Amino acid sequence: MVSAPDPLETSRRMWAVDPASRSLGMELVDLGAGTATVAMTVRDDMVNGYAIAHGGLVATLADTAFAMACNSRGRTTVASGFDVTFLEAGRAGDRLVARARETALRGRSGLYDVTVTREADGVVVAELRGRSRAVDRA
Amino acid sequence: MVSAPDPLETSRRMWAVDPASRSLGMELVDLGAGTATVAMTVRDDMVNGYAIAHGGLVATLADTAFAMACNSRGRTTVASGFDVTFLEAGRAGDRLVARARETALRGRSGLYDVTVTREADGVVVAELRGRSRAVDRA
Amino acid sequence: MVSAPDPLETSRRMWAVDPASRSLGMELVDLGAGTATVAMTVRDDMVNGYAIAHGGLVATLADTAFAMACNSRGRTTVASGFDVTFLEAGRAGDRLVARARETALRGRSGLYDVTVTREADGVVVAELRGRSRAVDRA
Amino acid sequence: MVSAPDPLETSRRMWAVDPASRSLGMELVDLGAGTATVAMTVRDDMVNGYAIAHGGLVATLADTAFAMACNSRGRTTVASGFDVTFLEAGRAGDRLVARARETALRGRSGLYDVTVTREADGVVVAELRGRSRAVDRA
Repeated sequence: MVSAPDPLETSRRMWAVDPASRSLGMELVDLGAGTATVAMTVRDDMVNGYAIAHGGLVATLADTAFAMACNSRGRTTVASGFDVTFLEAGRAGDRLVARARETALRGRSGLYDVTVTREADGVVVAELRGRSRAVDRA
Repeated sequence: MVSAPDPLETSRRMWAVDPASRSLGMELVDLGAGTATVAMTVRDDMVNGYAIAHGGLVATLADTAFAMACNSRGRTTVASGFDVTFLEAGRAGDRLVARARETALRGRSGLYDVTVTREADGVVVAELRGRSRAVDRA
Repeated sequence: MVSAPDPLETSRRMWAVDPASRSLGMELVDLGAGTATVAMTVRDDMVNGYAIAHGGLVATLADTAFAMACNSRGRTTVASGFDVTFLEAGRAGDRLVARARETALRGRSGLYDVTVTREADGVVVAELRGRSRAVDRA
Repeated sequence: MVSAPDPLETSRRMWAVDPASRSLGMELVDLGAGTATVAMTVRDDMVNGYAIAHGGLVATLADTAFAMACNSRGRTTVASGFDVTFLEAGRAGDRLVARARETALRGRSGLYDVTVTREADGVVVAELRGRSRAVDRA
């Protein structure tokens, strides 16, 4: 008896060999069909010249959750781009949690929304909308 | 005799105390009125699970050039958000160069376009459009 | 006895004197605190050279729902921009329904998500994310 | 003797049968390889409840220039989405000019930037960045 392949395997394999997320101290909190939650604590070397979390790194956290979510369907999928809005500044020591969910999936194209919150008080730090595209042969 | 303040000082001061850009190995190549060029070499700890430069970190490079450019007018300015499109994959060892320029400046709001190219062959890796807002009292 | 002003009045007044929405045959279906629903039937003069609903006009429908939603808080608010993704083509005769909701509101800045569906089968035609800014003195 | 097909034919054919652009009074001013200029005068029925040009219709003008530009390469191409920023209000009577140019073209995906100016004084009214995708079999 052969079991069907687990569609979450693509995301899990990616995560296991992702040096960037690891070096930024990210933690994969949760993974589901079309969803993913990734957390990161803002380190002293992640703040910018205004002593707030570098917007690019907040986006990198959200982009990582997006990548996990859009690869959770069992197809090799890449980000073609994203739009991010910064709503609140993160500070060194803040634990940020990025939750990604599938907003639309149509053929090879997907749209994923990611909300980044500060875990301590639930304040929304950023909203990212990611655009994905499956690139496999299937 | 008192000399007028140099508007580029805001960006220079930010850069001097920016731990995030430093820890990612970024280099401020050029800075002008409304423009900035920042370079970064993709390290082994900056690639994702597909062995290509993490899109978030490519965006972080472009976002940094954007931050330098929008603070070059002598006003304290923050990014309210950005949109990024990924056009080509970066690899470990690639030196990426992000050039930011002012597309529009109207009151407190600015729009900056950043092109990220791979230095070796000039191929465009990503295009970012940043939205800024001056937050000082002036 | 003086009653408190109804925050929805700003949106209602705007709608009453909005020639553009009227000339496009739009209907204000619902209005709430931070939400609005606007419908439009694709006319023969709203399709493009590929005989599908002009993307700009689908965006105009969604932008109108966004404008109603972001003005529903009792403050004069303008759209500073939006991002739209087209997911399915609309055809002449299709009744499209745009539902806007508040994703974030922080000081003068707001973020609104609008989903445009084809009423007949509920298929999502487009997703718009609008950025607003209150411009009154309050 | 057979002449090579003119790649601009796709755009020209689209324009000739585009009821939406016609009903909005748009004029195709110029068309080139990867570029297009389209003009529109803001009519009384194109302003919103604040008596300024409806942002959606300004975006529709820019989207039309984008569509002409991205179809100028001889391949059937559709807009997958766009981001627009509003910089200045248009008024009834203003003639607006949208100039689209190709920022990137890679495989089936393209990126087009459109600047909308008020003809009378050259002030920039809006900046749109469009994302296109060729959908033909070629």
